[in-house]
Amino acid sequence: MKADVKSVLGWLLAIALACASTLVRAQDPLPSWNDGHAKQRIIAFVAAVTDKASRDFVPPTERIAVFDNDGTLWSEQPAYVQLAFVVDRLKALAPQHPEWKTQQPFKGVLEGDPKAAAAAGEKGLLQMLMATHAGMTADEFAQTVKDWLASARHPRFKRPYTELVYQPMLELLAYLREAGFKTYIVSGGGVEFMRVFAEQRYGVPPEQVVGSTIRTKYEVRNGTPVIVRLPEVDFIDDGAGKPVGIHKFIGKRPIAAFGNSDGDFEMLEWVTSAPGPRLGLVVHHDDATREFAYDRRSPIGRLERGLDEGPRRGWTIASMKGDWKRVFPFEP
Amino acid sequence: MKADVKSVLGWLLAIALACASTLVRAQDPLPSWNDGHAKQRIIAFVAAVTDKASRDFVPPTERIAVFDNDGTLWSEQPAYVQLAFVVDRLKALAPQHPEWKTQQPFKGVLEGDPKAAAAAGEKGLLQMLMATHAGMTADEFAQTVKDWLASARHPRFKRPYTELVYQPMLELLAYLREAGFKTYIVSGGGVEFMRVFAEQRYGVPPEQVVGSTIRTKYEVRNGTPVIVRLPEVDFIDDGAGKPVGIHKFIGKRPIAAFGNSDGDFEMLEWVTSAPGPRLGLVVHHDDATREFAYDRRSPIGRLERGLDEGPRRGWTIASMKGDWKRVFPFEP
Repeated sequence: MKADVKSVLGWLLAIALACASTLVRAQDPLPSWNDGHAKQRIIAFVAAVTDKASRDFVPPTERIAVFDNDGTLWSEQPAYVQLAFVVDRLKALAPQHPEWKTQQPFKGVLEGDPKAAAAAGEKGLLQMLMATHAGMTADEFAQTVKDWLASARHPRFKRPYTELVYQPMLELLAYLREAGFKTYIVSGGGVEFMRVFAEQRYGVPPEQVVGSTIRTKYEVRNGTPVIVRLPEVDFIDDGAGKPVGIHKFIGKRPIAAFGNSDGDFEMLEWVTSAPGPRLGLVVHHDDATREFAYDRRSPIGRLERGLDEGPRRGWTIASMKGDWKRVFPFEP
Repeated sequence: MKADVKSVLGWLLAIALACASTLVRAQDPLPSWNDGHAKQRIIAFVAAVTDKASRDFVPPTERIAVFDNDGTLWSEQPAYVQLAFVVDRLKALAPQHPEWKTQQPFKGVLEGDPKAAAAAGEKGLLQMLMATHAGMTADEFAQTVKDWLASARHPRFKRPYTELVYQPMLELLAYLREAGFKTYIVSGGGVEFMRVFAEQRYGVPPEQVVGSTIRTKYEVRNGTPVIVRLPEVDFIDDGAGKPVGIHKFIGKRPIAAFGNSDGDFEMLEWVTSAPGPRLGLVVHHDDATREFAYDRRSPIGRLERGLDEGPRRGWTIASMKGDWKRVFPFEP
């Protein structure tokens, strides 16, 4: 009997604890963020701009948050995902282009000699980009990206790239939207590449994806109108191009910006230097165990000015190692 | 006593009629549209795409409607409003540009000789555009437009241009938004010109205004970041440029399009030639009494192909004279 009472008490206690833990979890909008400065800063900012009694209150129409994509929402190492797409597409298209066997940068890519390909410089990169991104309709391109994303695997994690999104950032996107924010992606990546997965993966619809574009033209083919992708750069949404892209596509100055590299510097500067409450946050990749560790000397996602000037500009540096309880959704 | 009863009955009848009329008005989402084909077509379309039981149901995320601005949402005669702005700005800036006294097209504009100015052709128009639209920050430009709109008056109606918006179209915008549509402007006009009044006048926020753009650059001036407007055309959102602009800025194919001239032809074609329920509507300016009458031979807002091909493409031609009970909000 005594044992029974104990057992019942034990059950009740367990249930109470489970309830309490569920309650705490329900109240924590960012469960994959460790308690610390970054998390506190985000929560305090959102509380202030949504509190009608606060002098920092911001009406919902002005609650615009912009997110870089590569390295901020998903992994960009060991190479940008879109670059992996380019390489795979070149290989798939090679049989139709026998001339690539002798032409750089194509030769280098096809022979698995990235140094030879890289030697072709920016012009070479542009050639590869146009060979894989132009000359088809917009619908055809989107389908190609979709098919590729379904089959391609990250070299280290052996998973689809769309699984290599950061769980803490997914929570942050949802938290901001819950607080009445309109969340935008503002990335150096191609708009039409990102739009294929941004809605499903991040909850960001096509009209809220700002990125680099190539020119397109409208054409009626046998009575059917199509948008055709042309081999000409239209706009590069990187560095000082980011505030320009924001101004062009959104036409409002966001109040929160999230990035991870110096390519996001001007975007963070543009957003945080306006009067009123502003949030700027830089994801610092310092976790080689769970993801990758890189900053000042990395050719991809280099972060130097942001680390040096960010703190004195009031930007929050979020440490992947220290601030993130979990990195990827697939972690236990 | 008998007279009293009559009087009471009369009052009751009057009240009942007033109530009934209010009820009918409340149920009519488009009170400034006369009952007729155009109004019926709009209402049937909205009913179909919002009815979950209908095979034409369209989920809210895909309910995108695009509206031309000049001649579709506000008057474009006797000249585009933005052109009136250009002329007034040239006059205001003339003291700083003594060289304009001898240079066309400036000389013609300043001397009130539009023919001489027009003789400078497209190059001349571009020169005037750049002289008035570039060389300042985006904020400065927006303020100039705002100030001008507050003081400028339409030559015939003697009212601010922002009062010359079409009441039936304001009702249509509101009706579509009420039905879960995201309403966009897609206009040949300048994005940064339209954004100044689109939100207040049409309820269309800056991020839903697509239009022509000039190039801009990001610059930090004495520690303050600004967007500077450059004298270079970036994108012309007219004719075949409209589907391109829609694809670039929205990234989805709208299901409803509203225009008034052949500059909207490709937009209407792009929208209405996709499978599924689609609505295309052309405002026909055939009311010289209340507004202006023009179509096939007008240099501004020419409508020829739309009239010839529209009906067989399933587009609704709305007659300003016959379909609109009221044209402007200021009418009694």
